Amino acid sequence: MRVLVTGAAGFLGAHVARYLVGAGHEVKGFDTAPSPDSAYESVIGDLLETESVISVAEGVDAVCHLGAIGDVYLAAEQPQLAAAVNVVGSSNVAIAAAEAGAKVVYASTWEVYGEPKYEPIDEGHPTNPDHPYNITKLAGEQLLLAADRLQGVPVTALRLGTACGGGLRPNSVFRIFIDRARAGEPITIQGDGSQGRQFTYAADIASAFELACGSDSHGIAMNIVAPETISIKELAELVVHRYPTELTFGEARPGDVPPAMVSPALAEKTLGWHAGTPFTVGLEHLLEDESDSS
Amino acid sequence: MRVLVTGAAGFLGAHVARYLVGAGHEVKGFDTAPSPDSAYESVIGDLLETESVISVAEGVDAVCHLGAIGDVYLAAEQPQLAAAVNVVGSSNVAIAAAEAGAKVVYASTWEVYGEPKYEPIDEGHPTNPDHPYNITKLAGEQLLLAADRLQGVPVTALRLGTACGGGLRPNSVFRIFIDRARAGEPITIQGDGSQGRQFTYAADIASAFELACGSDSHGIAMNIVAPETISIKELAELVVHRYPTELTFGEARPGDVPPAMVSPALAEKTLGWHAGTPFTVGLEHLLEDESDSS
Repeated sequence: MRVLVTGAAGFLGAHVARYLVGAGHEVKGFDTAPSPDSAYESVIGDLLETESVISVAEGVDAVCHLGAIGDVYLAAEQPQLAAAVNVVGSSNVAIAAAEAGAKVVYASTWEVYGEPKYEPIDEGHPTNPDHPYNITKLAGEQLLLAADRLQGVPVTALRLGTACGGGLRPNSVFRIFIDRARAGEPITIQGDGSQGRQFTYAADIASAFELACGSDSHGIAMNIVAPETISIKELAELVVHRYPTELTFGEARPGDVPPAMVSPALAEKTLGWHAGTPFTVGLEHLLEDESDSS
Repeated sequence: MRVLVTGAAGFLGAHVARYLVGAGHEVKGFDTAPSPDSAYESVIGDLLETESVISVAEGVDAVCHLGAIGDVYLAAEQPQLAAAVNVVGSSNVAIAAAEAGAKVVYASTWEVYGEPKYEPIDEGHPTNPDHPYNITKLAGEQLLLAADRLQGVPVTALRLGTACGGGLRPNSVFRIFIDRARAGEPITIQGDGSQGRQFTYAADIASAFELACGSDSHGIAMNIVAPETISIKELAELVVHRYPTELTFGEARPGDVPPAMVSPALAEKTLGWHAGTPFTVGLEHLLEDESDSS
């Protein structure tokens, strides 16, 4: 399969592109920066330029659309930029996919649900995003799914759990904890640390993209989250167990998304997807990777 | 009060600007085209240019933000344009209002709810927009309400019923019915005509904008819909009663928003707003206006 991966120079896009290459697909990366990976063709361009997106999507069978302002802090500082890239950019991907006759698999987020009305949250749960990042990601998802209904572009939206794996951006909780512990500095937990996250490994997320590209199902959003919930405090303790340092507690940050139990049952049933990596096994690999990269 | 009205050259923006002038406010209009009305200052500019929006909002107390791709057919043809104007543009309005210390009153739509889970629909009903127009209008609303929570910009979103009044765009159901009947051509109803709409007069909508500008309440979305539901068939019959012509029925259009009963109770309680114009009285005025303008 010929697959275009937007956002291929980003953390998750790079994982997906590499995974697809490994699975034997012909991959083309698209991003504003060159991809660090030479295993596939890398095209530099901007999601905001409709013609560039149409041009790069020509001839592909599927588009894995991960290009976005994915940094929640940047999205908060520049919501107009998040709106442009995440909403207008996704609309351009729909247009390009329609021209190419390609399927789109979209990187959405579990954060679209907002405060849980019931748990575990399935895909029928109301969406109530509350932050420029998740608001614009949901609008991108809805525009793509509208293109599925109105223009017949097959689209699957994957509502991803909090992703982790090698190459995470420096302001992610994983990287902050690991970097500080390894430097012997105290780790500060915002709030009481009881807030849970279904941390989902990048390789498992990448396998969901491959499964969705090859599936006949479309016009649908699916949760892609690991079943285990790990609290921030548990994560900090696991890191401190490996690199002993002090644990302290600070003020909860306003705008932090509250925890919610999200069900991956639909993706398991529809795509046969399973989060294959147990949390502690993945963390061990991650701690080793981080050591290697120092 | 000094009020900036974005979209002042559009159908609803012009009504709101004129109403505010009549109520004694100092009005400035902002649009890509000049306002047809000389009763207030008119500034030409683009919602997509952050600096232009900041500059025009300087010194105002409130922004009535109606500038949008409001034509659902144009939004369907060019969803990337709707995404830019309705989402990025609204984000720019939030930034400009934050700099000016102004309140924002946003023109949202009852269409954000999608298929009713219960009726009448109140503001706690889930949102499930299904078309580039209502998807991008909801994202604009959510970004503005996020600016209220995160940056302290006071924002009220008005989820407007289907608006009617003088100056409606030519592809609105009102104008199509009236123009065809007056020309002696048959009126075609798409579907069986049973789909109801809470047609809400532009002057009543304008009064809601004024009330919201002056209210201390913010961080809230409110339905602004007339309580009466009129079916498309009833509307056609009222027009045919005035300009006798043939009534025919055609295929339902895909993407037409299904009817839903929407409650204005929150706006009545919070703003003291009421839709003052009974439907048939307003329609009579409208039929007279249309005759005059021919």
